[in-house]
Amino acid sequence: MIVVMKKGASQEEIQHMVERVEQLGLKSHVIYGTERTVIAAIGDKRNGYRASLESGPGVDEVVPILAPYKMASSEVKAERSVVRAGSLEVGARRIGIIAGPCSVENESQIIKTAKAVRDAGATGLRGGAFKPRTSPYSFQGLKKQGLKLLAQARNETGLAVVTEVIATEDVGLVAEYADVLQIGARNMQNYRLLEAVGHSDRAVLLKRGPSATIEELLLAAEYVLDAGNPNVMLCERGVRTFENHTRFTLPLATVPYLHHKTHLPVIIDPSHGTGHAYLVPDMAKAAIAAGVDGLIVEVHPNPEEALSDGYQSLTFDQFREMMKICRRVAEAVDREITPHHDIR
Amino acid sequence: MIVVMKKGASQEEIQHMVERVEQLGLKSHVIYGTERTVIAAIGDKRNGYRASLESGPGVDEVVPILAPYKMASSEVKAERSVVRAGSLEVGARRIGIIAGPCSVENESQIIKTAKAVRDAGATGLRGGAFKPRTSPYSFQGLKKQGLKLLAQARNETGLAVVTEVIATEDVGLVAEYADVLQIGARNMQNYRLLEAVGHSDRAVLLKRGPSATIEELLLAAEYVLDAGNPNVMLCERGVRTFENHTRFTLPLATVPYLHHKTHLPVIIDPSHGTGHAYLVPDMAKAAIAAGVDGLIVEVHPNPEEALSDGYQSLTFDQFREMMKICRRVAEAVDREITPHHDIR
Amino acid sequence: MIVVMKKGASQEEIQHMVERVEQLGLKSHVIYGTERTVIAAIGDKRNGYRASLESGPGVDEVVPILAPYKMASSEVKAERSVVRAGSLEVGARRIGIIAGPCSVENESQIIKTAKAVRDAGATGLRGGAFKPRTSPYSFQGLKKQGLKLLAQARNETGLAVVTEVIATEDVGLVAEYADVLQIGARNMQNYRLLEAVGHSDRAVLLKRGPSATIEELLLAAEYVLDAGNPNVMLCERGVRTFENHTRFTLPLATVPYLHHKTHLPVIIDPSHGTGHAYLVPDMAKAAIAAGVDGLIVEVHPNPEEALSDGYQSLTFDQFREMMKICRRVAEAVDREITPHHDIR
Amino acid sequence: MIVVMKKGASQEEIQHMVERVEQLGLKSHVIYGTERTVIAAIGDKRNGYRASLESGPGVDEVVPILAPYKMASSEVKAERSVVRAGSLEVGARRIGIIAGPCSVENESQIIKTAKAVRDAGATGLRGGAFKPRTSPYSFQGLKKQGLKLLAQARNETGLAVVTEVIATEDVGLVAEYADVLQIGARNMQNYRLLEAVGHSDRAVLLKRGPSATIEELLLAAEYVLDAGNPNVMLCERGVRTFENHTRFTLPLATVPYLHHKTHLPVIIDPSHGTGHAYLVPDMAKAAIAAGVDGLIVEVHPNPEEALSDGYQSLTFDQFREMMKICRRVAEAVDREITPHHDIR
Repeated sequence: MIVVMKKGASQEEIQHMVERVEQLGLKSHVIYGTERTVIAAIGDKRNGYRASLESGPGVDEVVPILAPYKMASSEVKAERSVVRAGSLEVGARRIGIIAGPCSVENESQIIKTAKAVRDAGATGLRGGAFKPRTSPYSFQGLKKQGLKLLAQARNETGLAVVTEVIATEDVGLVAEYADVLQIGARNMQNYRLLEAVGHSDRAVLLKRGPSATIEELLLAAEYVLDAGNPNVMLCERGVRTFENHTRFTLPLATVPYLHHKTHLPVIIDPSHGTGHAYLVPDMAKAAIAAGVDGLIVEVHPNPEEALSDGYQSLTFDQFREMMKICRRVAEAVDREITPHHDIR
Repeated sequence: MIVVMKKGASQEEIQHMVERVEQLGLKSHVIYGTERTVIAAIGDKRNGYRASLESGPGVDEVVPILAPYKMASSEVKAERSVVRAGSLEVGARRIGIIAGPCSVENESQIIKTAKAVRDAGATGLRGGAFKPRTSPYSFQGLKKQGLKLLAQARNETGLAVVTEVIATEDVGLVAEYADVLQIGARNMQNYRLLEAVGHSDRAVLLKRGPSATIEELLLAAEYVLDAGNPNVMLCERGVRTFENHTRFTLPLATVPYLHHKTHLPVIIDPSHGTGHAYLVPDMAKAAIAAGVDGLIVEVHPNPEEALSDGYQSLTFDQFREMMKICRRVAEAVDREITPHHDIR
Repeated sequence: MIVVMKKGASQEEIQHMVERVEQLGLKSHVIYGTERTVIAAIGDKRNGYRASLESGPGVDEVVPILAPYKMASSEVKAERSVVRAGSLEVGARRIGIIAGPCSVENESQIIKTAKAVRDAGATGLRGGAFKPRTSPYSFQGLKKQGLKLLAQARNETGLAVVTEVIATEDVGLVAEYADVLQIGARNMQNYRLLEAVGHSDRAVLLKRGPSATIEELLLAAEYVLDAGNPNVMLCERGVRTFENHTRFTLPLATVPYLHHKTHLPVIIDPSHGTGHAYLVPDMAKAAIAAGVDGLIVEVHPNPEEALSDGYQSLTFDQFREMMKICRRVAEAVDREITPHHDIR
Repeated sequence: MIVVMKKGASQEEIQHMVERVEQLGLKSHVIYGTERTVIAAIGDKRNGYRASLESGPGVDEVVPILAPYKMASSEVKAERSVVRAGSLEVGARRIGIIAGPCSVENESQIIKTAKAVRDAGATGLRGGAFKPRTSPYSFQGLKKQGLKLLAQARNETGLAVVTEVIATEDVGLVAEYADVLQIGARNMQNYRLLEAVGHSDRAVLLKRGPSATIEELLLAAEYVLDAGNPNVMLCERGVRTFENHTRFTLPLATVPYLHHKTHLPVIIDPSHGTGHAYLVPDMAKAAIAAGVDGLIVEVHPNPEEALSDGYQSLTFDQFREMMKICRRVAEAVDREITPHHDIR
């Protein structure tokens, strides 16, 4: 940590801050510059104390040097993690594809979709049973019945089930039916929920909140890892910016950046990341070229009649076509979309 | 709702969309423009169906005309709501001031702060007992013991207690001790939690998420109102933007805009909204000049030693000085900071 | 400057960077931390060399310690600057009010508006003669004829004329007629234009670009100051964020923050900063409570028929009413709106 | 255009707005909804008049239906445009690669770089002679001498020269030496400059401003097209958001979105779009997978000693390696990186 003093800070103020640093169990090292004095605080403490130093007298700012997360850091674990959950494998050379409707609506919808996406190359099935909706007047999901339909789809297709859990009290129930517990973007900083899935033995797909920094995302993952669950996948689904022609702005540089900072696998959601079905395939291809470890894509038998998110869902044909080219792009960058038969 | 067809949409596509609109129970009205055709969909349905129309063939976009919230809307209830909770009164001509530390740390800290802020003019006491922290390694609050200290502070000062609840399972416990349940920015779209406080008889202070639109904030309030709790205060605490010299960007235009759109009272949090103690007083004054109904401000006996958020906390002296000028600004805009004796 | 090395950087890499720092004429100071090594680079160079150090081997990041601007800095000149231009006085205790139409449209419009705003308390008249418009098909201003009408309005009212200059080749012409040269937000980083107004003897009102950081704004001002013109006013007119209920997001914390960092006076533009006439008066009051040195406000005899920006223009009555309360707020914070008779 | 009246707008207000619409030469069409009345304004006028209608009595908002740009629109010209300038060809199946240093620094630097990037597959050479720099104290470019060195590099390699022009008065000079005039992000809305390059016979590479909407970018292109120059390439180089781990946030969805809205070719700048050399190659591959028509990439013989932007410049080896994989990705999506010999 570097404590930057204001220009003209007095010797007393500098001495006071040196003492504060040492009270925190850190070694201090004062550097007198031409215009300002800075105090380097040396030790293995992470930034828990940054806040208190910032309000010291004569202090201009405090610059942290260490990243505040540990278990998620590639400095702590250099080899890349692979997450496996049923037929889904994500990480290392393998790219896992998760596809399915926004919401589970009925038996025929979910079974037909599961078969179609498996045939096109998916190894995970997405589908919401508990739906967090912006408006209390929107469809809120089939809940337990939805979970049962997902499990039935897994039985019929072999696909791993990926579904969202929106409350601590539901974790046990959802974990009974699902292979992967999804934490939605709205709940990325619902720490009680993160701890609860951290205590589960299911893999976790953690979505980045639309205004979360990458550091906040990694600290959210740290809650899950710290609770004992190492099977965490990080998902970029777009951030909120001034751009209004897409639902969110999808920053694909997140993929190589996260690969640099963490060993956890990285998933891209081109459906929420764009909000328009016609933009999804190009962004899926781009994500693979950028080195992503997995995709999660919305697919619906008839998007026009979907109970939610129809405008960003692909038809079966569009998904099949997209997968064909994604496979070629994966090869071009020396990766492979995990084949289905390989895994079960 | 206005369905805008693409240039060159075929007569079949237009006819198809007219049928879709009518299937949704709305009346359709086709307008043939010079370059495009638009279909007005008339009826009292809110935008639940917008999504499905957007994926229709030949559709360019769907423009909603009605706001999707109802109970929060000033179109439904024109007179301004006043929220009262113990000594706190917020709304109409009265401005309620809530002040206190970020976290409850110990008895002496909270009791001393409560007395100091009451003497300076606050009628509500803030203080976190359950702390949602970005890092799992940061101080997480005193929990139940913190609630007890808050209740003790209320006994000694008469101040209403405002404290955050971060999980559904804690709502009962927190409601035993608090006058106002605060929903933090990270939980603004934790719908299960919104419903739980909606079923409580305590007033609710709902903070805007850092990337939530105003419409999303009002829809979050709608969850609480719809569950039966009319005592909701909305709190602007800053949005996340590219600006990096303040912790968040505090858009005070939220105050008059919300006064235009909703009857619910509006609170400003200049502490989180700026992230620097030296910017807080000027933004507090500005909020009052903009017509705000209340302030929530971080105050600490010794910010430099605070366990959280010290850099944005005022000292007792700074708070007292700020309140003096806030009172003058309130008068200048024909408002009044609720005096303490008035209420109990 | 602090050069932060990567965890595990080799001794060779550290040595290489020490030599690089010294080649730049700075003194180096190596600090070996528990996990990383940092190199403090000491000397009076500003951040011109930051970029090149960042690409050194084993370097994680380079943290600047000194602000890159000098002449604009309050560290260099502690007393607040006052800008005077004709009847306009901005800075110190005095608040200058600039008001008028977005565009000069015709003689009657500009003369009537000038009289109305002067009578309500303005000492500066705004009005665009050269209009930078997003679309080539929009009204582009009356150009020289517009300048003449502004000068005529000054003759009839005594108001200082504030008008935008959009190209280097127009600076001479505009300076013949105007008291203050406005650099619009789109041109904040048009460095050739900044230099040109820097060589003029007219005062300059420099608007912040909608995505410029405060540091970039101060560096833009530095171009003008460095060219020899000390009479620069900085204007916050809103930044571009995800918020869509206002045209831009107006961050009033810019006012106290700039007062902290620079001696230059600060102006707020609540018209562009909100984009809706009904939000303007409350933001004007708030700006004054926040300590602003001046306001620039759009006023039009008949906003509904304005050739540009009508939706954010006040009528004469609305402006007069706003000024009445602004005066009371100014008094509440120990400031004064510069009276007209005082100045000429 | 749809004029949405407020709930409870009076019959007089509606009638007034109908008259206003008709005064503008549009046909009006009133639709009485369950809660509100809307007025459709029909005709071929673009949004020049939107502003004035918005300030009408009883009006809630005005929703435009037509895009405000024409010549850039894919509705006006369906087939994709191809831009050719010397050895550079961009658009349709061909992907053009432009590479070179941020600034031209000296003869050896630019000639060596030109040869290296040509050998790796580039057909355009970038290099700044006039540099718009955030700080007046940074290196501002070699100016005319830089242009001459670029021309010499073209003579020796056959590469088309792409270089920035920052002022109207320089357009003639720069056009003497350059094949493509680049308009930098800071000048995207410098309309006088857009008109000047619109009157030139050189191709134009127009960079998106960091907070410009896509509509504003297309309107800026419209200025150039409208002045008579059809050879415009649009360049996405990242937008400014809250993300701070990259210099800008690079939204690759811009590529398919622009392909949908306009016939003009689309270029990606992964160097400015990320600000870190180690992120550039993955984003270049991703851009190609997303369907881009060209890349502009910073390459330097020794990034550590570059006078500007070294941290985001590739070495010759990194560029060659990147091009190898880019070629494979291009093939995977049925595109081709324009070979050099093909063109001259």
